[in-house]
Amino acid sequence: MIPEDHPRYRSLRARERLADCARAGIVALEGLSAHGRGEAFDYLLGEATTASARRAEETAAAMIMTATHPVISVNGNTAALGGGAIAALQQASGALVEVNLFHRTEERMQKITALLEEAGVAVLQGEAERLLPLSHDRALCLREGIYTADAVLVPLEDGDRCEALVAMGKRVITIDLNPLSRTAGAATLTVVDELTRALPTITAACAAMDEERAGGLMAAHDNQRLLREALDAIQERLKHALD
Amino acid sequence: MIPEDHPRYRSLRARERLADCARAGIVALEGLSAHGRGEAFDYLLGEATTASARRAEETAAAMIMTATHPVISVNGNTAALGGGAIAALQQASGALVEVNLFHRTEERMQKITALLEEAGVAVLQGEAERLLPLSHDRALCLREGIYTADAVLVPLEDGDRCEALVAMGKRVITIDLNPLSRTAGAATLTVVDELTRALPTITAACAAMDEERAGGLMAAHDNQRLLREALDAIQERLKHALD
Repeated sequence: MIPEDHPRYRSLRARERLADCARAGIVALEGLSAHGRGEAFDYLLGEATTASARRAEETAAAMIMTATHPVISVNGNTAALGGGAIAALQQASGALVEVNLFHRTEERMQKITALLEEAGVAVLQGEAERLLPLSHDRALCLREGIYTADAVLVPLEDGDRCEALVAMGKRVITIDLNPLSRTAGAATLTVVDELTRALPTITAACAAMDEERAGGLMAAHDNQRLLREALDAIQERLKHALD
Repeated sequence: MIPEDHPRYRSLRARERLADCARAGIVALEGLSAHGRGEAFDYLLGEATTASARRAEETAAAMIMTATHPVISVNGNTAALGGGAIAALQQASGALVEVNLFHRTEERMQKITALLEEAGVAVLQGEAERLLPLSHDRALCLREGIYTADAVLVPLEDGDRCEALVAMGKRVITIDLNPLSRTAGAATLTVVDELTRALPTITAACAAMDEERAGGLMAAHDNQRLLREALDAIQERLKHALD
């Protein structure tokens, strides 16, 4: 057990939760090392939401609230760490939620769907079809979900799939702690923040969004600047790390 | 299968190997996320041995070759990625090799010992005793091994155990890609490099070491400087990352 007053309690709890979910077949083993990479970048960011990330989260809310058909794509790590936060975001935004896995098996699809439903998420159901311009099962998604979406929130996404969704003309919003990842570079909007800090902030911004504010945020959006500001935040911390 | 000409082939192969070893009960699930953290830092270092890390590896060889009773402490991740390299280092240095696990079970001890023996390592055997100033099973080690050692090479070590070994008056050499980790800060010597690049370099330096060179390297050693140089290398890369 990790004591609640441990300075890195949230991070250590998340790590433990993912290992438990890997034992339960919800999180892929590859998801554990991916999470570790995220942890390292979060550590470098001070395990806190930067001002720039907060602006990204507000812009994400603007993109979701002004979309006609917004969809949240959920994988194993996202379901394990953010089930309740996804339910709240769905409630605030009216977005559809589709389970979409990189390491896809029928068993994992069912377990993750059950976990999300327990957390209060209405999970889109249907027959997956090969509709994305990718090889193998990575092309699978739902016609009424991701395929039709004009805006997709894909936390912790793979680079190839992020690029494919952008190429299909969608607004792609990702949450990725590595500002240098392929996903971060390819997305329409990259939220460089930890999932369980980012989702509630996006949800609160959705609830408070109006059309004028949304228009202003989207007009001012510059993803390269967001990525540069994330790198700046890391560099600023590194500068004083050994003082 | 990862194509051999992929620019990140070594990194992706290591990730796959660790997931395979986790399925086989050799690597702990916590070891997968720890590896992910290391991957992120290695990415920031350019996945290459810096000049400063090379000097650290030569100094590590000096410390091992001038010790009376050097011991290499091997955990699951080290065995999974570096079995053959540990065998070569043992041959070049004459160091004892002891299996010492953070998530210790009899089954993992046996599997890791078997894996190392297959790779040509002579693994020290015996009855583990609670000899380290730590709680629970983390205190366990062999009297003729780590307990008696004057120099211990502990790749990928936990911070608490690293501190305990230093407090016992040993030269503690660690291999850790995170220059800001507690282990990196506590060790006598921190090699900020990836395990499978670091071990062969240490082995080659052991084979070529003489007393005068060893004395010079150890007299010039400054671990804070090594850590600062690792951070400088990361910052230099971040500066140009988005160009």
